[in-house]
Amino acid sequence: MYLCISVLVVFFQMELLTLPALRRMAICGGTHGNEMTGVYLVQEMARRQKEEGDKAWPVPLVLVLSNPRAMQECRRYIETDLNRCFTSAILSFPITDSTPYEIRRAHELNALLGPKDSKEAVDVLCDLHNTTANMGVTLIAYSPNEWICLHIYKYLKGKMTLAPVRLFMVNIPKNEAYSLESVGKNGFSLEVGPQPHGVLRADIYNYMKEAIELSVEWIGLFNSGVMIEGGEVDAYVFHKSIDYPRDPESKQITAAVHPQLQDQDFCCLKSGDPVFLSFSGETVCYKEEEALYPFFINECAYYEKGIAFHLARKTTLKIPSVRVQRN
Amino acid sequence: MYLCISVLVVFFQMELLTLPALRRMAICGGTHGNEMTGVYLVQEMARRQKEEGDKAWPVPLVLVLSNPRAMQECRRYIETDLNRCFTSAILSFPITDSTPYEIRRAHELNALLGPKDSKEAVDVLCDLHNTTANMGVTLIAYSPNEWICLHIYKYLKGKMTLAPVRLFMVNIPKNEAYSLESVGKNGFSLEVGPQPHGVLRADIYNYMKEAIELSVEWIGLFNSGVMIEGGEVDAYVFHKSIDYPRDPESKQITAAVHPQLQDQDFCCLKSGDPVFLSFSGETVCYKEEEALYPFFINECAYYEKGIAFHLARKTTLKIPSVRVQRN
Repeated sequence: MYLCISVLVVFFQMELLTLPALRRMAICGGTHGNEMTGVYLVQEMARRQKEEGDKAWPVPLVLVLSNPRAMQECRRYIETDLNRCFTSAILSFPITDSTPYEIRRAHELNALLGPKDSKEAVDVLCDLHNTTANMGVTLIAYSPNEWICLHIYKYLKGKMTLAPVRLFMVNIPKNEAYSLESVGKNGFSLEVGPQPHGVLRADIYNYMKEAIELSVEWIGLFNSGVMIEGGEVDAYVFHKSIDYPRDPESKQITAAVHPQLQDQDFCCLKSGDPVFLSFSGETVCYKEEEALYPFFINECAYYEKGIAFHLARKTTLKIPSVRVQRN
Repeated sequence: MYLCISVLVVFFQMELLTLPALRRMAICGGTHGNEMTGVYLVQEMARRQKEEGDKAWPVPLVLVLSNPRAMQECRRYIETDLNRCFTSAILSFPITDSTPYEIRRAHELNALLGPKDSKEAVDVLCDLHNTTANMGVTLIAYSPNEWICLHIYKYLKGKMTLAPVRLFMVNIPKNEAYSLESVGKNGFSLEVGPQPHGVLRADIYNYMKEAIELSVEWIGLFNSGVMIEGGEVDAYVFHKSIDYPRDPESKQITAAVHPQLQDQDFCCLKSGDPVFLSFSGETVCYKEEEALYPFFINECAYYEKGIAFHLARKTTLKIPSVRVQRN
């Protein structure tokens, strides 16, 4: 036991990464036009930035409203889901007269905040989202070696007083990454819920505000030159999606998420647990042997995608200590 | 005191109304295309009716999906709010090529379930709605002498096991009544929440299912010829609507409903209680002297109408005992 602890101490002592300073951060709201918290938070931060100038935050912020037309109509999107338009392939499509609005907008945002995979890209991009699922504050990152995102997650987890904080790891290569945050050198989504789309709740607003203020605070701390200790963090790694039960002919859903599963995001789902309740009253149970962690349970926008919830495996990630590179 | 009780007993003994049998009831879902419980409940009841025929319910039911195009697009409406189209004035407009879809649909529904104020109209019309507000099961009726609706409310209040039941009284003349239920000889809306629009929650589905089954059960009981005792019921009578605080120039909202008011529908609001929390953190308090009852707090669809919540006065209504007229 003593030996184990010693080895661990040596491991963490050895693991010190120096990383470039984070000179510019983008915070984006309204990527989905009916997810209201980001829309109002970005506008409030812009008001404060106008009032206080450079002193408002410890790092220069680019504040962006991503999908103004969808915001205007209080819809997720106008022609296609903007947050699926940031693959390297779509960003290299030529724009023509028939290009959907959101693909045009993706190109504009890539020019403003990227280009993706270039040295001109913003150092950190945080994209603000809401979910109807009971997910508290969930950071979404692409891969388990995004040290800046993982450190911000660790910092939020230690400091957030208002809501539970979790990390969902998509785990796909960056050039296949489809969402806005992949345009930044480091990027993550902040998914906060539960909140109905088209509604603004003060509690959810305060969760997101606290999470953003702490993220910016961490970047200031990192840039100051102190060593920031690593450690271990829990993460949920995407495994698969589960659709609603459907009528084989009409394809209409025939059941709702079971009351015992509803709102239980990130709680372990074991074989035999109720999953769906059919409209005529029958319970459908989870049958797989492996216990997994459901999340995005009954998310409004996922009905059209055929997703009742995602399932994840829970894992522990080791993150090294970090310090900013000296010029 | 003894005298008072005696007078009350005499009052109720004297008050016995005989009313015509209720031979046909309509249940409508999807009047707002993104309020999912009614959509799925009406479809499930239609499936059961097809399976079991006339024996399915104690009274013949007409099951209607009111706004199929809005349901298809999972939106509240396509061109205009269908549930504001049932005034006598709008129902007598001539239809032309430029008539909005929902006004056409209102005429069709009036032909199917009315005509409004005619002897051909369905005897009871119940229109199913959801709200993002924490309103449990709320019946909405137009006037304090709609004895059938009041009796159904009293029955639900005594029998519902799953959710609180309340009555909201709009209190405007029937020819000015704008919503679908006003087409029936007797009509009420069933407003069930909280549920995000575009989402179906099993708990809310079960509340609405229980409320509808009990309503139909009461009609069967009434038609059977037994005397159904009257009594007193609480009701909330509309007083006025309150808008969000707004920027005087941009007209954008500058505050959200305060966390201490959010989800507190039908709880007494007194002078000095917090009402809004501004985006920069200031609390706005309720200043009026009269304590009132807020409801439809932070309803998604009311942002575009400039309503943060309604306020009501609480009152007690006396309802007479009723018995069906013998033929």
